[in-house]
Amino acid sequence: MAQHNPNPLGPWKITVYDQENFQGKRLEFTSACQNVMECSIDNIRSLKVECGAWAGYEHSSFCGQQFVLERGEYPHWESWSGSNAYHIERMMSFRPICSAVRFCSRPNHKESKMMLFEKENFMGSQWEINDDYPSLQAMGWGNNEIGSMQVQGGAWVCYQFPGYRGYQYIMECDRHGGEYKHYREWGSHAQSFQVQSLRRIQQ
Amino acid sequence: MAQHNPNPLGPWKITVYDQENFQGKRLEFTSACQNVMECSIDNIRSLKVECGAWAGYEHSSFCGQQFVLERGEYPHWESWSGSNAYHIERMMSFRPICSAVRFCSRPNHKESKMMLFEKENFMGSQWEINDDYPSLQAMGWGNNEIGSMQVQGGAWVCYQFPGYRGYQYIMECDRHGGEYKHYREWGSHAQSFQVQSLRRIQQ
Repeated sequence: MAQHNPNPLGPWKITVYDQENFQGKRLEFTSACQNVMECSIDNIRSLKVECGAWAGYEHSSFCGQQFVLERGEYPHWESWSGSNAYHIERMMSFRPICSAVRFCSRPNHKESKMMLFEKENFMGSQWEINDDYPSLQAMGWGNNEIGSMQVQGGAWVCYQFPGYRGYQYIMECDRHGGEYKHYREWGSHAQSFQVQSLRRIQQ
Repeated sequence: MAQHNPNPLGPWKITVYDQENFQGKRLEFTSACQNVMECSIDNIRSLKVECGAWAGYEHSSFCGQQFVLERGEYPHWESWSGSNAYHIERMMSFRPICSAVRFCSRPNHKESKMMLFEKENFMGSQWEINDDYPSLQAMGWGNNEIGSMQVQGGAWVCYQFPGYRGYQYIMECDRHGGEYKHYREWGSHAQSFQVQSLRRIQQ
């Protein structure tokens, strides 16, 4: 399992389509796309991730709602959106998640590491994690919010609701210096501190 | 972390409301409810899981779409539905997932065990798993389908799409003898063999 990429072009590959169910105009990418309209398609309506982990965005220039995209097939908007508070069926830019760790045997899984803080600005009680948590409350976290986060290794995705549902917030050790001091730094779609599940992003 | 339940009534507790955002008529349960209409509410529109892992169902008598419900707060239908092919905002019955394993330190996590088979009726190539897989293809599974499954320990939830999205299929070692020979045995909402992510249910 050390090598998942049979493609010599590099560790990342995504194929996007301008119609649902892998129909219509088709484009392959091995690196970031800042604006699909510059590639003469008006919107992405289905996609296949063939290599690596990617972040998709509602707007161009990596803005708006975030969608973590791992290897597999996404035939329509709902297959990557998760359950969201607002349904804008749009994905206009995407990029590789470079800090996502390689999936490998368990003994190495500590490459992914994050500190959770009860309050913003790294205040209040704290908890170090290196595993996936489908319910933070079941695993001992006191409430349905996280005040701030410090990613010390790997890439993570946080969710509003238990069981990996709702808004997705992608957190990476190599962006913002891994520091996410306030929900305003989680993405423009974040409107509260609510996080009830989170997991590592592996590729 | 050995004991998550401060409530002497037992290891399971769920509170349901007939309006969104934990408003309206409120009912507490510590065991299964076969039909919420028999409790004088027409539908569940928000809920809090306070203890244990639960399975929610679209229809009475544990039929229709399935929703895995772990500890935390679900303020509206979209917070538990995931991204689904059809949106019927209805949850009419629910029950504890008795075989969900206790969350505990890693050395014991092998209590959850499942065999995946390429073809229906436990045919074709097979793969034993005891961990969570946000992308089966990234982890080495050959395609976007699973033909059949045999749950040897614990409870699992399978999803149509990568990253724990789409239809949810709850699989338990103590139901059907843990055997799921064909997608027709996954639930009435299953219309294909498509499974692209799966994970253990812990409580």
